[in-house]
Amino acid sequence: MAGSTTAPPRTMRWEGDIHGALRLIDQTKLPETEEYIECSTVDEVWDAIKKLKVRGAPAIGVAAAYGVVLGAQTALRDDRFRFDNRISEICEYLATSRPTAVNLFWALDRMRKVTSDCSDFPPTEMAERLLEEARAIEHEDREMCAAIGRHGAELLPTDGGVMTHCNAGGLATAGDGTALSVIFAAVTSGKPIHVYANETRPLLQGSRLTAWELMKRDVPCTLICDNMAGQVMKEGRIKAVVTGADRIAANGDAANKIGTYSVAVLAKQHDIPFYIAAPSSTFDMSLSTGDEIPIEERQSDEITMGFGKRTAPEQVNTYNPAFDVTPASLIEALITEKGIIRPVNEEEIRRVLEL
Amino acid sequence: MAGSTTAPPRTMRWEGDIHGALRLIDQTKLPETEEYIECSTVDEVWDAIKKLKVRGAPAIGVAAAYGVVLGAQTALRDDRFRFDNRISEICEYLATSRPTAVNLFWALDRMRKVTSDCSDFPPTEMAERLLEEARAIEHEDREMCAAIGRHGAELLPTDGGVMTHCNAGGLATAGDGTALSVIFAAVTSGKPIHVYANETRPLLQGSRLTAWELMKRDVPCTLICDNMAGQVMKEGRIKAVVTGADRIAANGDAANKIGTYSVAVLAKQHDIPFYIAAPSSTFDMSLSTGDEIPIEERQSDEITMGFGKRTAPEQVNTYNPAFDVTPASLIEALITEKGIIRPVNEEEIRRVLEL
Repeated sequence: MAGSTTAPPRTMRWEGDIHGALRLIDQTKLPETEEYIECSTVDEVWDAIKKLKVRGAPAIGVAAAYGVVLGAQTALRDDRFRFDNRISEICEYLATSRPTAVNLFWALDRMRKVTSDCSDFPPTEMAERLLEEARAIEHEDREMCAAIGRHGAELLPTDGGVMTHCNAGGLATAGDGTALSVIFAAVTSGKPIHVYANETRPLLQGSRLTAWELMKRDVPCTLICDNMAGQVMKEGRIKAVVTGADRIAANGDAANKIGTYSVAVLAKQHDIPFYIAAPSSTFDMSLSTGDEIPIEERQSDEITMGFGKRTAPEQVNTYNPAFDVTPASLIEALITEKGIIRPVNEEEIRRVLEL
Repeated sequence: MAGSTTAPPRTMRWEGDIHGALRLIDQTKLPETEEYIECSTVDEVWDAIKKLKVRGAPAIGVAAAYGVVLGAQTALRDDRFRFDNRISEICEYLATSRPTAVNLFWALDRMRKVTSDCSDFPPTEMAERLLEEARAIEHEDREMCAAIGRHGAELLPTDGGVMTHCNAGGLATAGDGTALSVIFAAVTSGKPIHVYANETRPLLQGSRLTAWELMKRDVPCTLICDNMAGQVMKEGRIKAVVTGADRIAANGDAANKIGTYSVAVLAKQHDIPFYIAAPSSTFDMSLSTGDEIPIEERQSDEITMGFGKRTAPEQVNTYNPAFDVTPASLIEALITEKGIIRPVNEEEIRRVLEL
């Protein structure tokens, strides 16, 4: 009997033709309110990215691409400047909204390329091409998610508990997500999986976003604090772990949200397979190992006053690394849109990704 | 060069003679405000225990003992009832303030025994004896903490990072605590230790209490989220871990605040010695292994609205075990007031504790 999940909430949607607007779910309002905002100017998209109303590397890239289309609408009405120069300026401006997001730059580069490839087109036609390109970026992202889900679903157990950390779900992409896409695909294929979502301090993406997304799609889930991961594994509740990744080195070492490394060590200790699901664009073959991945350190108040209330002494020292690196040796397989990488090593990565 | 720590904040203090009152630090106001309350009635002590203004098994026992003295004051003014019967009733009432606290019952039993041992004393004299007994319980607790610190200090590294989880500090006892007593004693003996305090979700005792207590005593410390423990170990920042325990089975398996087990697994993975500091009263030799220790499951809102604001979807399933059990095989040594137990096994426990 095949299972199913209900339709996903749309993280973003372009509404209308070239004169349309971008509709986004405001992720800062989750889980309390499912509120959508309409962005009809470049500034509104910039602001949505800046304020984390839209988050997750692939989702930011898609939102920025549509932001360029909104910029094109204004440029069409203003003939004082060359259209392609205006687009180029808009791309530069949008790139400042999240200066560390690799996918943002990649998406904006694709939009810029449209204007240079079509430099002899009249502005209206160029604007049409920009909308097509944004739609292509969104479509490819959705396809990527689906392919990751398809490949990964086979790895998950036929039933039982699957743990995930942070949010690598539909809210982070235009499609079903990466780690959560694997889970959704497994459930759809008839595997009655129960998800254990780690809350993921300090910013609680697991609690605020993953639990919300799973409940929205009727996938049974249980929310736990991060420090309960070992206990639920010890109780035999977990048969597999699957998370996303932000950056993967040539040898397979993977950077992901802080806490992922601890979960991987605990999984190894309990003989539970630990999987990472990520698109091929996450691989950075210029880094030989994970030691070369810089770890961003974030501000103290995420720990000391995470939710509007001070929970630690004033002036307390904190250490707040946003990511950690899980060594390839702890990863059973990498799940990409191009297939499964197992065992996790450079040779196998190059073979599957055709590098 | 010997180090030092500044004087500890007094968790509680009896002020005056038999007509005096109990002064407590209100732990629910920490870390924002260091506020003291004066309890001059049994009801006020009952309320302070119930509302976690005083917490930590040893501290609760001492507070309850002084609560009986406050009851004796009223009993002396009311000759309608037999004095010893009134004391017995007061003990029964105080026992309802935290029905799972073993130390509370133990302390109240000692107070009851005073009235039965001295049943032919006049009430005033019996009241004097009750105050003496409460003072003895407090004094013994303080001595126990000091002995644990003395024994454990030698195990800590000569410098570097020591991790702790939850609050096993002075706030949980009448003295310097258990795990923190080891740290305070090591610092006093001249070891320049830097403490990494895990915040300890869901109730954040590490963040609210341990960090506060360490800062109060000028012990350098860094607050981290629980899911950062693996990363800070991997970075080589931690040379030892020391925590408290709530209950220890005959084979050395130890129950402590949720998350302790995960930390112990991570410590083993990084070749870092993991110590537990606890008084001999924590050992329950009637349980052959930790599997027999029941794990209390607590209510959902500690996870979903822990920071005074809802941070998870309504109706989300949660799992909230308050404790976990660390197997003896992961514990390098148990530190008790009677000495160090190493290796951790039943034979060595019985030898050191003289059972």
